[in-house]
Amino acid sequence: MDRTRETSQDLLEEVKSLIENHKYFELRELLEEYHIIDIFDIMESLEDEDMQIKLFEVLPSDMAASILEESGVEFFSNMISKLEIEHAKNILECMSLGDMADILNELEEDERLKIIDYLNPEDAAAVKELLFYEDDTAGGTMTKGYISINKHMTALEAIEHMREEAEDAETIYYIYVVDDDGKLVGVLSLRELIVARNDSIIEDLMIENLVSVYDYEDREEAVRLVSKYNLVAIPVIDKENKLRGIIKVDDIIDVMEEEANEDMYKLAGSSEHEMDVAEDEKSTLLQQITSSLRGRLPWLILSLAGGVVASLILTKFEVIGDSKFVQLLFFLPLIIGMGGNTGSQASSVTVITLSNRDVERKDIIKEFCVGLIGGVICSLISAILIYLMYRDMDVTLIVSITLLLNMVIGAIVGVLMPLFIRKIDSDPAIISTPVISMFLDIIGICIYYGTAILMLKLI
Amino acid sequence: MDRTRETSQDLLEEVKSLIENHKYFELRELLEEYHIIDIFDIMESLEDEDMQIKLFEVLPSDMAASILEESGVEFFSNMISKLEIEHAKNILECMSLGDMADILNELEEDERLKIIDYLNPEDAAAVKELLFYEDDTAGGTMTKGYISINKHMTALEAIEHMREEAEDAETIYYIYVVDDDGKLVGVLSLRELIVARNDSIIEDLMIENLVSVYDYEDREEAVRLVSKYNLVAIPVIDKENKLRGIIKVDDIIDVMEEEANEDMYKLAGSSEHEMDVAEDEKSTLLQQITSSLRGRLPWLILSLAGGVVASLILTKFEVIGDSKFVQLLFFLPLIIGMGGNTGSQASSVTVITLSNRDVERKDIIKEFCVGLIGGVICSLISAILIYLMYRDMDVTLIVSITLLLNMVIGAIVGVLMPLFIRKIDSDPAIISTPVISMFLDIIGICIYYGTAILMLKLI
Repeated sequence: MDRTRETSQDLLEEVKSLIENHKYFELRELLEEYHIIDIFDIMESLEDEDMQIKLFEVLPSDMAASILEESGVEFFSNMISKLEIEHAKNILECMSLGDMADILNELEEDERLKIIDYLNPEDAAAVKELLFYEDDTAGGTMTKGYISINKHMTALEAIEHMREEAEDAETIYYIYVVDDDGKLVGVLSLRELIVARNDSIIEDLMIENLVSVYDYEDREEAVRLVSKYNLVAIPVIDKENKLRGIIKVDDIIDVMEEEANEDMYKLAGSSEHEMDVAEDEKSTLLQQITSSLRGRLPWLILSLAGGVVASLILTKFEVIGDSKFVQLLFFLPLIIGMGGNTGSQASSVTVITLSNRDVERKDIIKEFCVGLIGGVICSLISAILIYLMYRDMDVTLIVSITLLLNMVIGAIVGVLMPLFIRKIDSDPAIISTPVISMFLDIIGICIYYGTAILMLKLI
Repeated sequence: MDRTRETSQDLLEEVKSLIENHKYFELRELLEEYHIIDIFDIMESLEDEDMQIKLFEVLPSDMAASILEESGVEFFSNMISKLEIEHAKNILECMSLGDMADILNELEEDERLKIIDYLNPEDAAAVKELLFYEDDTAGGTMTKGYISINKHMTALEAIEHMREEAEDAETIYYIYVVDDDGKLVGVLSLRELIVARNDSIIEDLMIENLVSVYDYEDREEAVRLVSKYNLVAIPVIDKENKLRGIIKVDDIIDVMEEEANEDMYKLAGSSEHEMDVAEDEKSTLLQQITSSLRGRLPWLILSLAGGVVASLILTKFEVIGDSKFVQLLFFLPLIIGMGGNTGSQASSVTVITLSNRDVERKDIIKEFCVGLIGGVICSLISAILIYLMYRDMDVTLIVSITLLLNMVIGAIVGVLMPLFIRKIDSDPAIISTPVISMFLDIIGICIYYGTAILMLKLI
């Protein structure tokens, strides 16, 4: 057995040569050995568009449909437009309606309508329903390929029904039970159905207490429930509890990957929109640059304003007296850098914690202690270094005391700011690194100034 | 139908009153309506330990086992030690060996051996095997509850075998096919087995081309494959291709959640270790503080060293001439802050991109353009503000030109540094915000100095 046969150069060459020699039968035989995803990889590696189309045409309809489910909108509309209408219709019939709706969502109105025209009336209605939902809702993430049975059926009738529906179903691991009004009332696993006696009534077999999500809810709620209850799929219902679709675990995984990246983009001081554009293979360089600027510039300009305010505060330093004052300015990068770093570490950790659970008093005490101990250690190191380098006790004391204060305050601000944002009902992830740095820069300079005045008076 | 019946206060009160009134039969009836995870939530909300134990004792063995699978090591060893030995043995028999091994891993040696002594010889051997693997390998993540059949069986024999094994199996969606030596040679989905003719030979039905992962590989490889190929479980094999276990999609989801948080911790300038301790409910405040300091201090000290170097470079500024020189120092926070922010945005985005795909020339050009355009905009804004505030053309020009240069260089360093780290085969995620800031602070100050000298000579 070959292990995972991910696309190799050899295979690609073999496919190319079979296409060039018009050996389509052999090509089809070869491809049936491989996983859809690997075939899609090969297709993407073929640079010649004619070859792509030839390869696609050779595939059986169900395999071609699976390829389209994985592909982007450009590939989809390109392939569909190149195929004979009947062949295209057959392939569309095999596609997951959830994936199809996701692709149609990105097409122009007229092209979308043309594709919907190719579908049978039942599928067309279902796709239109899916297109109605926003992308980031449970409804926008669900698909239609589920099996549902009536609660009054016997186990035998249910198995019969399941066998008929199995071909169109995207998952047969859960069978959903509805009442005469189409309301979701229970769930059966395939395992339970198989071991049941033939004449048992579904209503007596089913599990009534099932986890579901409303179609208008955020898709992250679906992720949370699937993750919490270890599900392979979650049913989506409407306000009247009618079953509208399911979200499968592989789509949950896709959402999780996207959301994790989204959080990282926000933490870095950019936006979800930049990520969407960056991940869209069709986007042009110009679109990518515009989206990045849109995401990042607001934070940069806020930061710029902070820097200008900092310069205004620094002009007040002159009262300290010329020579000391200039020497103290040399340590500005050190002072504000360390406060900012401590603060951004504390705020990032708090934002991450908040995305998983509530932040407790214990977490705040922890950040305070970490800031204090880290501050004492860094302040001692800096005191030794600065004294050895400059042999000036005043400067050494002022810098190291300010460093300690700044790091403690950095830690406190870092942990409290996301909590405050959460309290006023915003997303704590907007506390990105640039914002916290700017905020702490200004606080840090004020503390530096205050400490300097105080120390020089005391000494 | 109630929707998701997550733990409510009412239910908690009901459970409490049933326990207090010794109505154990009614309690068991009530609990059977609920999902394991909800029962676990209730158990955690019960503050009284005796009540917890009573509630746990009431549960049937298989439900109790599922509760233990979800729980942490403390709850596990507490419950097992409080139960009668025979009851404990029954519960352990029902547990997923993968989850059990994860818990045993965290127990003291003598307690671990005591638990293993409770197991039947077969389970004991399997658990010992699982304990042998490192946590972050595929072997350390896998479990034993899979169904495997011999390739020479008929479909009917396979279904019989599956029915026998189904009780212990954690997933029956994939049935793995092995040869006489136990080597993994194929896979069948339950769906395919059910629709097959009774006398078909498994070898002819199975899919030979299956995706698997080696036991010694990183668990992230398992995540990548499950996500890429949309799997519900992935088989784990050893060097000789023998089937050793499976990783189920719900464990993949757990790993994904952990890894996403890990990346965020690293980006913030901390470590995986801090996260592990923070998420461990058993860890004391002292342990949490120590782990945070261990993760964050190295970056802070590195940053401190950078700050000291910066002060050394700044002393060279004195050649510029007293009054201009002091004025220029006022803009230090602005200059280095903006360079650092641009750099950390660029490096974070690059680190995130690298975790998903290769960074291409296009990405580098994009970051350069974003730095350049962002730089021009910020530089113009700062020029206007500074001129209006200080009415000094020299300072205005020096600051705004340096700002532009710094932001462009910040963008370039930010995108290239993670690429360089990847090239020398390290994890690009070590380029955390504190490191990139320190690096760019020093570069920024040198540019500032150079520009100032050059401009003042030119004017």
